[in-house]
Amino acid sequence: MPCKSCRQCLAGRYNLCPDVQFFATPPVDGSIAKYVVHDAAFAHPAPAGLTAEQAAMAEPVSVGVWACRKTEVSVGDRVLVTGAGPVGLFAAQAARAFGASSVTVTDLSDFRLEVARELGFDARRADQALATNSFDVLFECSGAAPAFKAGMRSLDRAGRAVVIGMGSDELPLEVFALQGKELTVSGVFRYRNCYPAALELISSGAVQVAPVLTHRFDLPQTEEALTLVRREPNSLKAVVVP
Amino acid sequence: MPCKSCRQCLAGRYNLCPDVQFFATPPVDGSIAKYVVHDAAFAHPAPAGLTAEQAAMAEPVSVGVWACRKTEVSVGDRVLVTGAGPVGLFAAQAARAFGASSVTVTDLSDFRLEVARELGFDARRADQALATNSFDVLFECSGAAPAFKAGMRSLDRAGRAVVIGMGSDELPLEVFALQGKELTVSGVFRYRNCYPAALELISSGAVQVAPVLTHRFDLPQTEEALTLVRREPNSLKAVVVP
Amino acid sequence: MPCKSCRQCLAGRYNLCPDVQFFATPPVDGSIAKYVVHDAAFAHPAPAGLTAEQAAMAEPVSVGVWACRKTEVSVGDRVLVTGAGPVGLFAAQAARAFGASSVTVTDLSDFRLEVARELGFDARRADQALATNSFDVLFECSGAAPAFKAGMRSLDRAGRAVVIGMGSDELPLEVFALQGKELTVSGVFRYRNCYPAALELISSGAVQVAPVLTHRFDLPQTEEALTLVRREPNSLKAVVVP
Amino acid sequence: MPCKSCRQCLAGRYNLCPDVQFFATPPVDGSIAKYVVHDAAFAHPAPAGLTAEQAAMAEPVSVGVWACRKTEVSVGDRVLVTGAGPVGLFAAQAARAFGASSVTVTDLSDFRLEVARELGFDARRADQALATNSFDVLFECSGAAPAFKAGMRSLDRAGRAVVIGMGSDELPLEVFALQGKELTVSGVFRYRNCYPAALELISSGAVQVAPVLTHRFDLPQTEEALTLVRREPNSLKAVVVP
Repeated sequence: MPCKSCRQCLAGRYNLCPDVQFFATPPVDGSIAKYVVHDAAFAHPAPAGLTAEQAAMAEPVSVGVWACRKTEVSVGDRVLVTGAGPVGLFAAQAARAFGASSVTVTDLSDFRLEVARELGFDARRADQALATNSFDVLFECSGAAPAFKAGMRSLDRAGRAVVIGMGSDELPLEVFALQGKELTVSGVFRYRNCYPAALELISSGAVQVAPVLTHRFDLPQTEEALTLVRREPNSLKAVVVP
Repeated sequence: MPCKSCRQCLAGRYNLCPDVQFFATPPVDGSIAKYVVHDAAFAHPAPAGLTAEQAAMAEPVSVGVWACRKTEVSVGDRVLVTGAGPVGLFAAQAARAFGASSVTVTDLSDFRLEVARELGFDARRADQALATNSFDVLFECSGAAPAFKAGMRSLDRAGRAVVIGMGSDELPLEVFALQGKELTVSGVFRYRNCYPAALELISSGAVQVAPVLTHRFDLPQTEEALTLVRREPNSLKAVVVP
Repeated sequence: MPCKSCRQCLAGRYNLCPDVQFFATPPVDGSIAKYVVHDAAFAHPAPAGLTAEQAAMAEPVSVGVWACRKTEVSVGDRVLVTGAGPVGLFAAQAARAFGASSVTVTDLSDFRLEVARELGFDARRADQALATNSFDVLFECSGAAPAFKAGMRSLDRAGRAVVIGMGSDELPLEVFALQGKELTVSGVFRYRNCYPAALELISSGAVQVAPVLTHRFDLPQTEEALTLVRREPNSLKAVVVP
Repeated sequence: MPCKSCRQCLAGRYNLCPDVQFFATPPVDGSIAKYVVHDAAFAHPAPAGLTAEQAAMAEPVSVGVWACRKTEVSVGDRVLVTGAGPVGLFAAQAARAFGASSVTVTDLSDFRLEVARELGFDARRADQALATNSFDVLFECSGAAPAFKAGMRSLDRAGRAVVIGMGSDELPLEVFALQGKELTVSGVFRYRNCYPAALELISSGAVQVAPVLTHRFDLPQTEEALTLVRREPNSLKAVVVP
């Protein structure tokens, strides 16, 4: 929860509040429970017809919505998503809902590429070369430095990139591409004001959560849910059903 | 000269025209002359009272104007300029004219820092630490990777950086700062539509060229002018008076 | 055709070029012909599979694309289109393609409202009251002062309106709504850089032209095509097939 | 005070909060006192050296700052301010601080025009014709319909207008100018996040309050202060010194 009173909060950037306390993140305990007390300002009603597990996906879908807003994805944009994990697959679907003309998804996992393909995206192996000047927007969702570098090279003039994935401490920023094409790179820290749009996209079917939601756990199995991705290569998102 | 007809030109980004031919850059010869033929669209009348050498500085001043526009420098912004070469000193003056609340300039050369100080800036040695979250805008004009890294760390939340300096092939982009503070980094490739504003700033005195214009050469000495900076550490900008 | 060299053209606003010469508008004759000579910069290849009459609709569809860009229509926006003529119906479809959450269309003609309904919009009679604070974006396509006034009142805080329709010399701008809700109103003069997006939307089926294209004429019948709307109330757009 | 929790507040538009309670506006009593209790989030420290009456002017100066931000006033802009009352004179000074290339002020009062002239502005009688296409930005501060109409006509292509003055219920919006020049008109409702910039501009001397502060009153004379402008034509802003 942000403080709602600092310079960042009053400017509408509450996700950058220096005093923000993230629910469900240490040291805030107690979120793994059937009922929790929550500030109404950040509780959003789920549209009629949404299952609890669909509504739960509003969190990762919001990251995609925020990435689209940061880079102003719209009709005419060719979007490249590097990394077909849950966030990448939701961000790719968000881009399509924002009007993107084409969405290309890259990864090294054939399992994930297959899911991307089923969702209707142009899915390509990340170790294949990308044509230069072939995208307007890059969503870097892999956290891998080579993917960022290749993605930046593939952007067209005036292209916009957003770094979503975590994993590298530093990414190599090639000056020739940045300057010669006047690219813009930004980072996202979660999101702000995106839940209503995320819920709406899930509700309308514009964002499908079923193909991404590969595993379900009970409340006592929460630890297994959190460590799933380390054990099971052919997994995407796990949900805990309380 | 841009083609004026491609997608970039028609969108107003003529500096990104793939077919642009830069006047005075190989393979376009013949610009080192007393008179040249030039497209009227890119010839700008100098305001009354400007000397030829003042007007000539509209070129590097335009880089500063463009950097201010890219990062939307305005009242309330604390601007950091890393690198007190001619472009840095002009960009710093442009930032002040755009309303910046404070402008700080860093360099390793005491000569250059002294010029920055005379121009009224907070001038600091680049090897001194900068406080975190203390700037809103970074103009990286040194081309040095450490300056970029330190500058990015010193930016406050929602800060904007622009990479102007050349020198490093790659700059290290720290993911923690980029994401945690939602920074934006962009590159500039010369400028567009900036000459009228640059001439106006020089004409009004908001940008002073005299302290930056350290050396003058005749037309036959053009080569000496171009290589001055390698020979003479206490130099800034050279002008060729035809 | 714009001059490509003035301040407006170089800034990417070529539709505002003071020397623009509109093809097919007096005093430029000769456009009503099977073949015409045209500047390649403004000739756009039709995507494969498009019929000539579909491609011809890129012109009015571009108006809708431009309105969406001017008002930055995106996911989450509730859009109101006042006036269900060809431009209104294309603009409404463009808004949906840009991600609008809902699109409401008003008119006084039951014929036009029926077409709007078939296209999937919430179609309402223009003489019915609209709830206050119920839309984020207004596309005024009727040219009628009461529609503008009612539309502005129905906008929510921070709403954006664009005046597309012609017909009134003056529109009444209510200060209470403009200030109290900090609304923004802009005008559009044709469009710029919108044909590729318009062609793409027609090609993908996101914008359907068939329900709007109610009449077809041969080249010698061009005058009848241009005057159709005065004679035939149940008409929308006429196309001349050369 | 805004609620800090609604959609508008969380988006950073707290001045549009539907539940905002304006301090010092009915039905909130008790602000006419030597000491008041106030939410720290909206209390701003006055920079060292500012007198209380200078600091008090941060309120009307904030309106000017907000108008500059709404219309993105910057270097190169020719700004027209219609109405040389306190808000107009502060907004004009704010525009200059934001880098405006020229600022023209119109009014019908010779007293007010003289103050504008002393502040360095191009001051003109409001009943004199303005050249077309001669301004980029209009701050309408008079509340008079003819001033708005003349101001809009005088804007150049792509011009931006903001309606600040109150007085007319409706303003006449000429469609020919709005569309043909693609003008943008917005309204402002007080301001948001502008006090720090306003205080800084007063502190630096960029905005001078002395020429505008024509009258001073004691606390018991507050009513006289509030009605001054009706009685005394040669007055501008009154301040109550508690």
